Order: sequence, then structure tokens, then C-alpha cells
Amino acid sequence: MADTKTRPTRGGRAARIAARTNPPPVYLNTLHSKIGPIDLLGPEGVEEIHNAAMTILETTGIEFRDPTALADWKRAGADVQDQRVRVGRDMLMELIGSIPNGWAYHGRNAERSTRVGGRDTVFANAYGAPFVYGLDGVRRPSTLQDAQNFFKMAQMSQAMHVPGILPVEPQDVPIPQRHLDLVKSALTLTDKPVMGSVLSETAARDTVEMMRIVHGEDFIEKNVVVAALLNCNTPLVWDETMLQSLRVYAAANQPCLLTPFVLAGASTPASPLGGVALLIAEALAGLAYSQIIRRGCPMVLGVALMGVSMKTGAPMMGSPEPGLMNLLVGQMARHYGVPWRSCTMWTGAKTPDLQAGYDSANTMWSVLLGGCNFVVHSAGFVEGALGVSYSKWVHDAIQLEGYHRFFSGLQSEDLGSILGDIAGIGPGGHFLGTDHTRENPMHMNILQNNDSYEQWEAEGSRNADLVGRDAAQKMLDTYVKPPMPDDVAGALNDFVAKKRAAYAN
Amino acid sequence: MADTKTRPTRGGRAARIAARTNPPPVYLNTLHSKIGPIDLLGPEGVEEIHNAAMTILETTGIEFRDPTALADWKRAGADVQDQRVRVGRDMLMELIGSIPNGWAYHGRNAERSTRVGGRDTVFANAYGAPFVYGLDGVRRPSTLQDAQNFFKMAQMSQAMHVPGILPVEPQDVPIPQRHLDLVKSALTLTDKPVMGSVLSETAARDTVEMMRIVHGEDFIEKNVVVAALLNCNTPLVWDETMLQSLRVYAAANQPCLLTPFVLAGASTPASPLGGVALLIAEALAGLAYSQIIRRGCPMVLGVALMGVSMKTGAPMMGSPEPGLMNLLVGQMARHYGVPWRSCTMWTGAKTPDLQAGYDSANTMWSVLLGGCNFVVHSAGFVEGALGVSYSKWVHDAIQLEGYHRFFSGLQSEDLGSILGDIAGIGPGGHFLGTDHTRENPMHMNILQNNDSYEQWEAEGSRNADLVGRDAAQKMLDTYVKPPMPDDVAGALNDFVAKKRAAYAN
Repeated sequence: MADTKTRPTRGGRAARIAARTNPPPVYLNTLHSKIGPIDLLGPEGVEEIHNAAMTILETTGIEFRDPTALADWKRAGADVQDQRVRVGRDMLMELIGSIPNGWAYHGRNAERSTRVGGRDTVFANAYGAPFVYGLDGVRRPSTLQDAQNFFKMAQMSQAMHVPGILPVEPQDVPIPQRHLDLVKSALTLTDKPVMGSVLSETAARDTVEMMRIVHGEDFIEKNVVVAALLNCNTPLVWDETMLQSLRVYAAANQPCLLTPFVLAGASTPASPLGGVALLIAEALAGLAYSQIIRRGCPMVLGVALMGVSMKTGAPMMGSPEPGLMNLLVGQMARHYGVPWRSCTMWTGAKTPDLQAGYDSANTMWSVLLGGCNFVVHSAGFVEGALGVSYSKWVHDAIQLEGYHRFFSGLQSEDLGSILGDIAGIGPGGHFLGTDHTRENPMHMNILQNNDSYEQWEAEGSRNADLVGRDAAQKMLDTYVKPPMPDDVAGALNDFVAKKRAAYAN
Repeated sequence: MADTKTRPTRGGRAARIAARTNPPPVYLNTLHSKIGPIDLLGPEGVEEIHNAAMTILETTGIEFRDPTALADWKRAGADVQDQRVRVGRDMLMELIGSIPNGWAYHGRNAERSTRVGGRDTVFANAYGAPFVYGLDGVRRPSTLQDAQNFFKMAQMSQAMHVPGILPVEPQDVPIPQRHLDLVKSALTLTDKPVMGSVLSETAARDTVEMMRIVHGEDFIEKNVVVAALLNCNTPLVWDETMLQSLRVYAAANQPCLLTPFVLAGASTPASPLGGVALLIAEALAGLAYSQIIRRGCPMVLGVALMGVSMKTGAPMMGSPEPGLMNLLVGQMARHYGVPWRSCTMWTGAKTPDLQAGYDSANTMWSVLLGGCNFVVHSAGFVEGALGVSYSKWVHDAIQLEGYHRFFSGLQSEDLGSILGDIAGIGPGGHFLGTDHTRENPMHMNILQNNDSYEQWEAEGSRNADLVGRDAAQKMLDTYVKPPMPDDVAGALNDFVAKKRAAYAN
């Protein structure tokens, strides 16, 4: 692991110079959306999906492939046959009712804390890709240094609220030790709210321990400092690995994003309504189980929505049906009063090209119009989520600033004074020199090239891919490591060293 | 001009073979949106913008730089001083009240006719770029053949309802004759609803004459067959060329898209509310004047919305503030009961790259969420609207199909039968083989590459730009010219020949 002690150029004098010559980013608060959410259904439509989900859980039931969960469900009063759990709607809704509607999500720097739920939305980093498209544009297996780079870039990004935990899969670290390096890197390289490892029950336990070291035992007992991403195997299977992690996080009062992984047309019916009824059943079963583990523990209704090509079986990102399903899931999550999570900024494209822009933007609009509270994969994905491009990561992260501005809606303005400008300037004039224009500059995307063709050509005819790679390098060059108290850093190092030694045996 | 007679490969046998081997496109109807429109303002907010617009027209007034219009306004009872026209709100709103809320928009093939207004939206072609990025990707001045190619591609496109009139500027044709070639090409190469030339009063008159030849004099007296795009010089100037064309089209009972051209922060205040108050004043003044020319004539409230870079003064496309303004303009247009027009699918990018995708999609979402009825520049723009890329044109046109699908909302479905599938398949199965999946394939974008990296690499590592260029060539290769009765074609040829000779002198 690239420990801080081995990278002296990042600390001390170099950091102070970087801070002076590159002013720190202006961080954007939690997005509190004023646009939407869009409700596709009337009350009877909501009731129809709800009833369908309840019918699925009452009659077909759902598999919990995990002996502890089956025993827990039986004790709670559900009908358990082999691995199949059937839950009545009264019991289910009573359990769901104890999930909080929203909460503060704490980074170790209080100024980077944010909020999830209601109209509050956070943007979180990419997750789990085995490949990167490097600063040179070349694809290769991802490493721990890549993961650390994306933590640093998340730390420097204005709108990336949550650096995540597994921005790419560090293939150069042995699996049993991977979570130690990732959690330590996330906690030391950023001071924003992070996510938790779900590689194994041990990884989840170690994550929670490290959170206790950094935040203090009392604090995390009452506050959210970590969120973990858990997938349901659609259709209708929760597996042991996921449930083991769920028990660890729920017991520690920390939320999980309980996420049916939907390939619409393959793992669910090719029907927005039917697919959502199924995934809502799955998510609610996981959410209800979390409340058996610990009543009142915060949780997130998750979904990962893709279409599937009827020609090749490949996942399709940015399609209209998953877009409609995002709106439906959002409406159902509001109906249940539970924060919800979706995925965005992804594409099947193998380069950050026109397709990548369309797929990413088209997904993001449906996610934000659905009022999503926890937006995962907010930057960098290409290759159907198997790769993260450094170039696209920066473009996407800067796009987040524009979405933040749009969905924040109208700002309060003194229309009377603006009308005075219009009267003063009159026909044929311009407003470039007014006080109002100077004080209210239009939002600018610093990577957007709006120069003339001739100027663009004179400067090397650089496409967005090249622009993004340079911007990523600059972000890394100007990164400033957030301070951490010596005793905390020491305790974290000791914990990791001890565990690393134990897992090496 | 590349007359039909000089291109024998396009007619007869070749066309029949093409029609057999390439099935004709399935055309998409008018988009009847079920999503949105999003109202940003409450009733008092609408009233505030309305009052501001009225105050601008009553106190500052607006310039009509055209003696006929000034005389018309004076006769109608407005306060006219030099070129400045001030109109009271009662008179203005009484005139606006006679504009129809929507209408059928006829192509010469009744099956290609569409509707504008209310919840009905049409997608129209790009307009006026002096450059193309060719099938080889190289930028050059655009020609008549390019314009004709984009007419053909619009004809072949599923979702491009309106081929327009000036998809690119044919720089190889003398200006006085340009409109003849363009109108004839639009009318013969397509059978969809077209747009009208506004190069001059003569060009407008010739356009209307050619529409009479094709549709019949009686038909166009009562039906919309052509729409013309007219810009207002924001702030607060309507010029003579535009007004001359307006009079020709209005007298013929054909609509104009009366369009303030907004560089927010330069030609309007850098304020969504203030900018919209100004452009609404401008558009309403033009709309009201149209009703002095001919009461009850259909018209469209237009807007072209860009931001302006505070660093370089360059137009910025895809920014959040113009996005918010699209929502505001839509809400105001609904308040006045007038169809509205906006711009989309544009970008400052000089290649069809990631930026181009983001700028285009981000603009389109705000336009469609605003409930825009007449969406201009629906395919192809790059270079800040100075260029049309063949590659991007096809990508954009296919994106329209996805937007059409999304904004058409949920389809009616038999949820009971889908629940039967779920019960039958149960945990761990898949839905690829169900009747429902086969009968309801997910929407597919035929240009979207979702293959594995390895397969994509084996097939040449082609980015979206290359994919789009090939698709454009294929569209042109498989184009089938729609039939036109010989007598109509003859009359059109005679008219053009006579006028061409006259304008050559």
C-alpha cells in the first residue's frame, strides 16, 4: 500500500505550495432538489404496484440463502419453508415503517457532511470496475493506486459528495487484505462521508472498527458515517455474503443500499410496471429484514437498472425503459418513506465518446427526475461498468456541478432592478457590463470547449477525451491531503498492520 | 442543382431493389408527451413575469425597424414614436388571444402529417449551418448536395418529423436562387411537413407559391403546410427582413416561429427570470403583430437559448440556466395558450465527442421537460451551431427515438399476467423466454455499442464518430424517394425554372 509515509512530496511544503497556487475547491452542499420529482402514477397505480409486490412476497415468496436469516425470519413470525420466506403484508409494512426517512451522512470533516433522504441527494463515486482507462487513455487492470487516485479526485471534486469505497477494484492487492487498504485510503485521503466494504463478514466488521477509530464509538452509535452497497440477485434471491454484511452494518446502526440488480427483460419482466413490482418486493424484503436485526436502523431502497439487448443479451445503459423505471422506483420509495439509491453516468461505450455522453446524461436525468437520494456511479464508468476512465471521471464530476445548479432551481432575484437594466439599455444594447451580469455569472463548465474552430484547431484539435485526461492529471497534481490527528492516524495504522498480518497467515 | 433527372440510380429499378432489401422505416407519430411539463412557477410567479413583460412593452417599448409594421401598429392603436412601439397590455392580450393553441401540420403525404401544440411535439431538422463535417469526418463549407442529403436522411428517420428547409447553408448556390433549390428539394426529396425560406420577401412569396402548387390553393388557405423561422434581435428589435417574411406567411395563414435569439448574460440579463421576461415581451410583440396582419393565423412563440461565457464571450450550449429558462418559457407559453419552439442537440464541441453528447442531451431534456411543441435543430449540430456533422446527425436522430419512447410514458400492461410469469419463474430464474419478453422487446438504439471490450477491439475499436459516419452513408444508400404525381412535379419544375431565370438576370 502506498502509505503516507512513503510519499513525502504530498505532505508539508509541497502541499502548502499547492494550496497557495491552486485555491481549494468550493464544495457544493447536498443537492436539495427543486425540480420534480416526477410522479408517473396516480394513487391507484401506486397501490397496484404495492399490491403486486405484496402478492409476490406472500405467495411466491423470496429466498434467503443464509441459515441465520432464515432463523431470524422464523422467529419474527414469517412463513419459512426450506430457503423460501413468505411474509404477510401487515408484518412487512410494520417493519418498513421503522426505517428513517432521511439522515445526516457524516464525513470526518463536519464541513463535508451531507444529507440523504426526502429532497436531499448526494452524488457518490464509481464502484467496483476491474479495469481503468488510464491517464494515457490505455485500458489495463485497475490497481490500488488507481483506487487511491479516484479517492483523491473525489476529495478535490466540488460535487462528488461521497468518495465511496471501491472506486475501482485493486487487482494488485490480495483479496483478504483488499478492504483494509481501501477503507484506510478512503478515510485518510478524503474527509468526506465514505462507504463500507462488503467483501465478507470480516471486511464489514473491520470497516466498522475503522469507523469507530476515526469517528469515536459513541458517535457512530447515533450517526451515519458509512453506507454499504449490497446487491440482491434478482429475481428473488438474497445470498449469504450480502446478508452477513447487512447484519454487521445494521447492528452498528449504519445503512445499507439494498439493491436488486436489474437487467430488465432478463432478470425481471421486460415491463416497467412488472419489473418494478418485482424489484420493490425484493428490496422491501431486504429492508424488512434489516429492521429485524435492528429496529430503526437507517436503510436505503436500492436499484441498479439496465435493459438487456434482445439481440446479444448484453446490458444496455441509457435506455428509455430503465429511465421510466427510475421514476417508478422513486415514487414507490416516497410512498414507503424510505430514501432510495440508483445508478448513473454509465455506458456500454468503450471510449468516452458521443455514445458515452448520451448514455450517461440520459440515465442521470431520469435518476434526478425520480428524486433519487443516493446516486451511485456518479463519475467515470465506461464499458458497461467494467471500466472507469480517468478522462470521463473528470468530465462526469464536472457535469454533476451543472446538474446541481439546474436541479437547485431558480435563485431568488430582484426582478425590479433587472427591469431597470432593461429599461436603461433598451433596444439593440447588451447586458455584458451591468452590475447584475458581473455579480451573477452564468454557470461555466471548465472542460467545455466553446472556442472558434480556428482557435480550437490552432490549439491542437483536442477532443473531450484528451481534455479530460489532462484535467485528471491536474486534479492529481493539485490534490491536497486533508489533515488527520496523529493519534487517529496512528490507531488506524496499528489496526491495519495488525489485521494485515493476521490475514497474511 | 442535382435534379432528379440527372440522378438515374435513385429512381426506378434501383429504388425498388433498395425498398425490398431495406424495409422502410417505421415512422413515429407526433410525440404526445406524458412526462411533465414541469412548472417552475406558481401562479404569482407567472403573473410576475407577465407583468414584467407588459411593463417592458408599455414603458420601454420595442423597435420595429420596418415602415409597414410601424404604420400597421399605428393604425391598430399602438403608441408609435419613430421606430419605437409601445403597446398596452389589454390590446396586446386581446391580439394574442386569437392565436390557435395547436394545429395539424401537413406533409404532402398525409401519413407523415403531425401535430403541434398542447402536449404534441414535433422534432425538426437542423437549420442554417455554413459548414459540414462530412462522411469522411472532415470539415468543409456546406453545399446544396449536403442540404439534399440531410433532407433524405430526415425522410428516412423514424422520429425526424420535419425535414426543415435549410438543414445546412448551400454555399455553392447563388443567394437569390438558393431558396428555389432548397424548397424544391425539401418538397421532392421528402413527403413530410417542411419549413419555409425567410431569406427575403421574394423567397417567402416563392415558398408559399410552391406550397400552393404541391398542396393546392384551397388546402393551404385552411391548413398548415409550412412553418418559417424568424429571429428577433434581442434585446427588443424586430427587423425589416424578418417582418417582410412574417407578413407573407401570416397572410397565407401559415405559422412563423417568432424567436428571440438569446445569449443569456449578453443579449438578455444573466437572470433566468429577467431574461425570460424580456424574451416573452419580444415574442409577444411579434405574435401580436401577426394577428394584426391576419386574425386567427397560427403562430409559434419561439426562443433560442444559449448562455454566454464570461471569460471569452462565446456562446455556451447545454448550460443549466438556459435549461431553467426553457422550463419558464414553456410555462409562459402555456399561460398564453400558444405553441412554443426551442432549440436542442447543439454543442460548442468541434467533434461529435463526449462534450457533444452531454451538451446535446442536457439541452434536450430541459426542452422536453418544458413541454416544447416545436423542437428545432433536433440533429447534427456541432461547433456552436456553425456546423452539422453527418455522424452526429444520425446519432442524434436515433436518440430522438429514445426520447420519444421515454416521454410517451408507460404503456398499458396486463400486470396480472406478468405476475403469473414471476410466480412461475420464481427465485433465481430468468425472463428471457417468456411470451411477454418476446412480445415487448426493450427499446434498442441501433448505434449503441454494448459489446464486450474484446469484441469491440476485434471489430476495429470504432468510436461513436466512426459508427455514425457509416450509418449516415447507409441511410443515404438505402434512401427511397417518395413518389410525387407527374403533374405536380412538372408544375414545380416549371415554376423553379421560370424564377431561376428571372433571378439570374
